[in-house]
Amino acid sequence: MEFASQGKKELVPLASAYGRFLAEDLIADHDVPSFDRSPYDGFAIRAEDSASASAEQPISFEVVGEIGAGFVFSEQVECGQAVRIMTGAQIPQGCNAVVMLELTRQYEENGKNYMEIKRPYQKGDNISHQGEDMKKGTALVKKGTYINPGISALLATFGYHEVPVIQKPVIGVLATGSELLDANEPLQPGKIRNSNAFMILSQIERAGGEARYFGKFSDDLDTCISAVKAALSEVDFLITTGGVSVGDYDYLPEIYQQLGAEVLFNKIAMRPGSVTTVAQLNNQLLFGLSGNPSACYVGFELFVRPIIRRFAWNESPHLRREKAILGEDFKKPNPFTRFVRATLSFNEGQLVVSPSGFNKSSAVSSLAEANAFIVLPGGTRGYEKGMIVDVLLLEDLQGSEWPWHEIVPSYR
Amino acid sequence: MEFASQGKKELVPLASAYGRFLAEDLIADHDVPSFDRSPYDGFAIRAEDSASASAEQPISFEVVGEIGAGFVFSEQVECGQAVRIMTGAQIPQGCNAVVMLELTRQYEENGKNYMEIKRPYQKGDNISHQGEDMKKGTALVKKGTYINPGISALLATFGYHEVPVIQKPVIGVLATGSELLDANEPLQPGKIRNSNAFMILSQIERAGGEARYFGKFSDDLDTCISAVKAALSEVDFLITTGGVSVGDYDYLPEIYQQLGAEVLFNKIAMRPGSVTTVAQLNNQLLFGLSGNPSACYVGFELFVRPIIRRFAWNESPHLRREKAILGEDFKKPNPFTRFVRATLSFNEGQLVVSPSGFNKSSAVSSLAEANAFIVLPGGTRGYEKGMIVDVLLLEDLQGSEWPWHEIVPSYR
Repeated sequence: MEFASQGKKELVPLASAYGRFLAEDLIADHDVPSFDRSPYDGFAIRAEDSASASAEQPISFEVVGEIGAGFVFSEQVECGQAVRIMTGAQIPQGCNAVVMLELTRQYEENGKNYMEIKRPYQKGDNISHQGEDMKKGTALVKKGTYINPGISALLATFGYHEVPVIQKPVIGVLATGSELLDANEPLQPGKIRNSNAFMILSQIERAGGEARYFGKFSDDLDTCISAVKAALSEVDFLITTGGVSVGDYDYLPEIYQQLGAEVLFNKIAMRPGSVTTVAQLNNQLLFGLSGNPSACYVGFELFVRPIIRRFAWNESPHLRREKAILGEDFKKPNPFTRFVRATLSFNEGQLVVSPSGFNKSSAVSSLAEANAFIVLPGGTRGYEKGMIVDVLLLEDLQGSEWPWHEIVPSYR
Repeated sequence: MEFASQGKKELVPLASAYGRFLAEDLIADHDVPSFDRSPYDGFAIRAEDSASASAEQPISFEVVGEIGAGFVFSEQVECGQAVRIMTGAQIPQGCNAVVMLELTRQYEENGKNYMEIKRPYQKGDNISHQGEDMKKGTALVKKGTYINPGISALLATFGYHEVPVIQKPVIGVLATGSELLDANEPLQPGKIRNSNAFMILSQIERAGGEARYFGKFSDDLDTCISAVKAALSEVDFLITTGGVSVGDYDYLPEIYQQLGAEVLFNKIAMRPGSVTTVAQLNNQLLFGLSGNPSACYVGFELFVRPIIRRFAWNESPHLRREKAILGEDFKKPNPFTRFVRATLSFNEGQLVVSPSGFNKSSAVSSLAEANAFIVLPGGTRGYEKGMIVDVLLLEDLQGSEWPWHEIVPSYR
């Protein structure tokens, strides 16, 4: 997080702002509503004129005009007068209460219009008061907040025809591995199709970034180095997959060295994803994720996602952490903290979490149903169904403020 | 739901499939992995050759070759031989176990390479078996499922360079109301900026539709009718906001009549949104949502969202319904079922729900933080903090199968 960069502002049309992150605090620049208005169709009156109204002795008002939403009644309403008023219209000068249409009786007499009521009204009855929804000057939404439909409504209300949002970080993806086939190639003995790259493109999009795929590289070291260099010049962050384990054919350490990148860490006490590497070159982050799909997926969510959300100035960039009931046994202890791909459900409002399928770092199938990770701290004990565990939510928009590096001590 | 239409298939590049809905069942057309492979860097051996190995009497194997991921070892491995193997590489013919690199000692003798182990291995040790992740023929993901990053990985694995997805429904939005200003217009007495349209554009996008904004209409009836006619010819569904209450200036009933549209319902026993109207014309649905922001928002999520998700062939098109603890009192009973804009939180994994702010049908501010509705069934009793209530989740991808029309009887 020390090397996390933060994005600049750009303006987008309001209709395109959904799902982006706000680049400025949103502050109410006027009261909402900006005038006293009627929440109902009815008649605006002076409440004091209704004081003696009753079923036995109704009071009649002369209807001196009518006013639709968006219009202003230009005259002063006097004693004994009423104005027919539509939902949303501004209360006429002199009036201080609204009578609902269905509680009146209307009639004509001598060419004049009247309406009659059978009970008294208090000053302020049935009026939506200026500022009751939002007061001028109120800080409504913070910079770095995800723009949801409600915030779109606020932006329109306060005149943001164009919306200042944070530019999306451009994140490059480059797959390495001599075993990789493109998605459109037929299977060949010993080879697999490159699923990681497309998975990560989707993860980048889910996190709020803009993905750029640079293809797969399985050739010689020099080709890889050129590819990484070229990619770095076009992106904010670069992700490589594969080529980071201890095998003889792994290029990544060599690439980092030749680029002069500083490796921040290249081994993490966790499963899967222990070979996740993060390096920096002139403050630009390079993520070396595992070639194993599940390890790659977990590495992205734990290490890349927070960097994307921080880029967006979001104040809770990490995966949201909550408690849940473990839905299945994990009896075999593991010295390393595990992040198990899992599916959340609710039992009468109580979060329950169960592994989403085949649980190996190489697994692809379990990722399709995963919407959470179960966090099982490493140690000498196993875990049993019914225990309370930490979960990290993958489809949540809110996130957590807790930094990843604090989770480990909290379990010790 | 009887008038819900269902979308057709289109092909999109795999990199653009995230967030779309799958147009075909996804079935594994081969085993994954498609061959026995090594999960580690190490040596492939014949387990039977290691039977007598011990710390005191290590067994040596001649290393007859090496094999990287993506390559195939072409020879048969014989008694006493081993092959250096990288993570992900196919197990050579004749071998049936893998020894991890770090558990071996390697040496050279007479120009030949050897490695030595100190314990026996069983047939199958450290092998990722063909089909262990997914078996050929397994139905993995159903038509109508939201494509998340894990499903992107599956699609790549099974060679979907192009992905059959459901076309997005095009949903028109047309605002009516003489009080409306555009977002870029300065405030004027008695007028408000049109926030509903931009809110709905975002809600459409969140639900998975493609929004088309036709502007606001506050002129005469004929202009409105032409606008609605023109819009209908371009869209799958049309939403209008405003103009649907009982006021004198409301055009919508007249528009429906002149178009020859059949009004399916125009009043609902709920708050807010009681004046929500749905009509159909030649099986094309027209939604008349309230001009009040909160009522409009609720009407969209309860009535339009399910139609969008059903269009995508999704099997759980309604908002996901769960139970939660009510975080605040609602002591005043209401004869109508209320849908209160609310914010969810977790207390040790237990869902808690509290109203997200100012709670009137005209409110805009409460929508910014809303990620759920609290459902408070109508009746003669109020609700107290701590009670268990139904909630409908707004940011969930899973949805519910329950049809909206069944919620009401279940509370009676």
